[in-house]
Amino acid sequence: MTAGPRPQVVIVGAGFGGLAAARGLARAAVDVTVVDRRNFHLFQPLLYQVATAALNPSDVAWPVRSVLSKQANARVLLGEVCGIDSAARQVVLRDGRHLAYDWLILATGATHTYFGHDEWAAVAPGLKRIDDATLIRRRILLAFERAENSDDEEERARLLTFVVVGAGPTGVELAGAIAELARHALASDFRSIDPRDARIVLVEGGPRVLPAFPESLAAFAQAALQKMGVDVWTQRQVTGCDRDGVSFSGERLPAATILWAAGVAASPAGQWLGANCDRAGRVQVAPDLSVAGQPQVFVIGDSALVLQAGQPVPGIAPAAKQEGAYVAAKIRAALAGKPETPPFRYRHYGNLATIGRNSAVIHYRRLKLSGFFAWLLWCVAHVYFLIGARNRTLVALQWMFSYITFSRGARLIVGSDADAQSNPRTSA
Amino acid sequence: MTAGPRPQVVIVGAGFGGLAAARGLARAAVDVTVVDRRNFHLFQPLLYQVATAALNPSDVAWPVRSVLSKQANARVLLGEVCGIDSAARQVVLRDGRHLAYDWLILATGATHTYFGHDEWAAVAPGLKRIDDATLIRRRILLAFERAENSDDEEERARLLTFVVVGAGPTGVELAGAIAELARHALASDFRSIDPRDARIVLVEGGPRVLPAFPESLAAFAQAALQKMGVDVWTQRQVTGCDRDGVSFSGERLPAATILWAAGVAASPAGQWLGANCDRAGRVQVAPDLSVAGQPQVFVIGDSALVLQAGQPVPGIAPAAKQEGAYVAAKIRAALAGKPETPPFRYRHYGNLATIGRNSAVIHYRRLKLSGFFAWLLWCVAHVYFLIGARNRTLVALQWMFSYITFSRGARLIVGSDADAQSNPRTSA
Repeated sequence: MTAGPRPQVVIVGAGFGGLAAARGLARAAVDVTVVDRRNFHLFQPLLYQVATAALNPSDVAWPVRSVLSKQANARVLLGEVCGIDSAARQVVLRDGRHLAYDWLILATGATHTYFGHDEWAAVAPGLKRIDDATLIRRRILLAFERAENSDDEEERARLLTFVVVGAGPTGVELAGAIAELARHALASDFRSIDPRDARIVLVEGGPRVLPAFPESLAAFAQAALQKMGVDVWTQRQVTGCDRDGVSFSGERLPAATILWAAGVAASPAGQWLGANCDRAGRVQVAPDLSVAGQPQVFVIGDSALVLQAGQPVPGIAPAAKQEGAYVAAKIRAALAGKPETPPFRYRHYGNLATIGRNSAVIHYRRLKLSGFFAWLLWCVAHVYFLIGARNRTLVALQWMFSYITFSRGARLIVGSDADAQSNPRTSA
Repeated sequence: MTAGPRPQVVIVGAGFGGLAAARGLARAAVDVTVVDRRNFHLFQPLLYQVATAALNPSDVAWPVRSVLSKQANARVLLGEVCGIDSAARQVVLRDGRHLAYDWLILATGATHTYFGHDEWAAVAPGLKRIDDATLIRRRILLAFERAENSDDEEERARLLTFVVVGAGPTGVELAGAIAELARHALASDFRSIDPRDARIVLVEGGPRVLPAFPESLAAFAQAALQKMGVDVWTQRQVTGCDRDGVSFSGERLPAATILWAAGVAASPAGQWLGANCDRAGRVQVAPDLSVAGQPQVFVIGDSALVLQAGQPVPGIAPAAKQEGAYVAAKIRAALAGKPETPPFRYRHYGNLATIGRNSAVIHYRRLKLSGFFAWLLWCVAHVYFLIGARNRTLVALQWMFSYITFSRGARLIVGSDADAQSNPRTSA
């Protein structure tokens, strides 16, 4: 595959940033190739609902092909990128293929990091991919099943203890959703145990939950979690994770299920480029999101460290979308003979996090909203941002069913039990 | 766990038969324990729609716990049975636990058989479990992805050839659904290949498709399949299956995807009991469905060979349900001091199979229906038999979306690619 008469734009990653870039080039006189390891775009903000049996994997994922089906200048390639040959301007795939590019957009996202303790990954899975979500769902549901089967008091308590490490939005949402699962959806389904005895512990190294939110909203969230029965432990550093539980300095919490929502590390885009990265592996990009010395290569989304007034742009979906759209506009301008464009400017619309039924926090400019109306807005916003009428309807409907009946529709333990014990890294 | 003051009824398997038996005992003065390896009841008749990306796993599966949540005398145990100690009247679980029973109902279902060629299982998965369905979905979708990536004409043709072995209802439904997937849902999503070039071959050893149906309906189904572009090969014996294709006596069909819908074998209930079985492993039961010499042990559903006027009762959901209800009634009668009951009598309501959009065949007593109205009836019947308002609504809605838009909502390739190449048996 060599560069044809039309400029070749290769986009690696079909997340929010990559798709925004592809769409922004729909009318440009270029050939767009979107490469992803997976055949679907994932709506990560709702992934925790798959992990807690509220939604199906396919409710929060769409085939990349159908998203771009009508965009005639775009093609989709299922493949894993393993390197970039900057000199030859080629992307190298693991199966040996090379893709020539005139412009390259790297939107490869982030993964979780265990701060140097990769061995914790096997016992404390994080939540980034569909396979993570079904693994976590399996572990949570199996913990209840095993507790039902156990005659040992102490072992039961360990099986019914769920630890979520990290109290950002994902950690808060996971902890809240597990509490609701235990207290409502599962409450009357067991005979030997009472799922309401489940203990959910949300652990945070910093002084409070939701550090990106104003203090008043964080306080609301913490109180709401505690009211739902979640233990919130702040200023605790995890010093160890194993099959039997979590260690803190001088303390030990026996727990069968540990979920990791703490560290974020960028994917290896920086290594492929040999570019300057920060400690989290994010590529330090120029004000136009290009890479130093390679003006035709851009890094966007969670893989990029974009500084705005000295502050890094947050790793959230709206930021990735804005960056994708910006880069597409920049390429269009260059094609039109205008290589100089104003630098990227991130517009922060706000932060939102849901805690559970009827309870969320929203920070939008000067507006701070918490409780029922925030939750309603959260629901509407998330349904709105889903792709396609089908998923919107199905998600809205399942939320309505869950809201009315307090039940969860996707309580399946699939895959083998052996899987649940092995390293989740190997399952994807 | 020892027998309490109330008689203990243990039911192994939470399929159609097992659940019908459990429900039939809801008001009986017994303790009911339902044991299953899985935490969900599976609506197998729609499993092929999961395999062809039309429905989600959780649309056709319900947690056994929530099905029996309100039945106070029933408990659910997640566990794998590995044997029965008839002398001690105990069911032995793989984790070492023993369950004492006064009455035992074995409803462990069936699996597929490869007529002595178990090595074919790895390349030609059958469709009995959720994990089978997601494996098959992954293989079908990956075949198209790989064809898109291939530059080799011959390899493309092989990747786009799908062989379904066995033309009973499952085989016919699978072949029809793959044809629709290729011709409608995927049609415009690829750039290098045209999914409509896919070749779907339905292979049958006997003289015609749908052997359980009247000849006129089978002829209709065959013509409808051919119109959809499915090649129907009858009277062909498969002599070999491997990664590259299927062999017949004196013929070879290169194909990347082979699906097995041919042989059915009962699960090992007969071996556990040391009972008389037929060649397919089904236990030969007495007219009251009990096992010879063990009047308190019953075998129902696909694990049992029930003869009615010399003919075996078919291995379909209505038969299993009737058998489960009969055994429950028999136990209730025995508890009421009436050990003698009339023998089980199977009432055959009919056979139905869908071929695709607007096309199905129904044989109900003397009524033979084919085409659009049969299809409509098929849809209504299947939605009706699903458990719970949630699943009924979601399935009906997804069918409506698919019907209007010709698309498929669950086109996810999950799990690792390596999995798809390895023995599917190991994944569950």
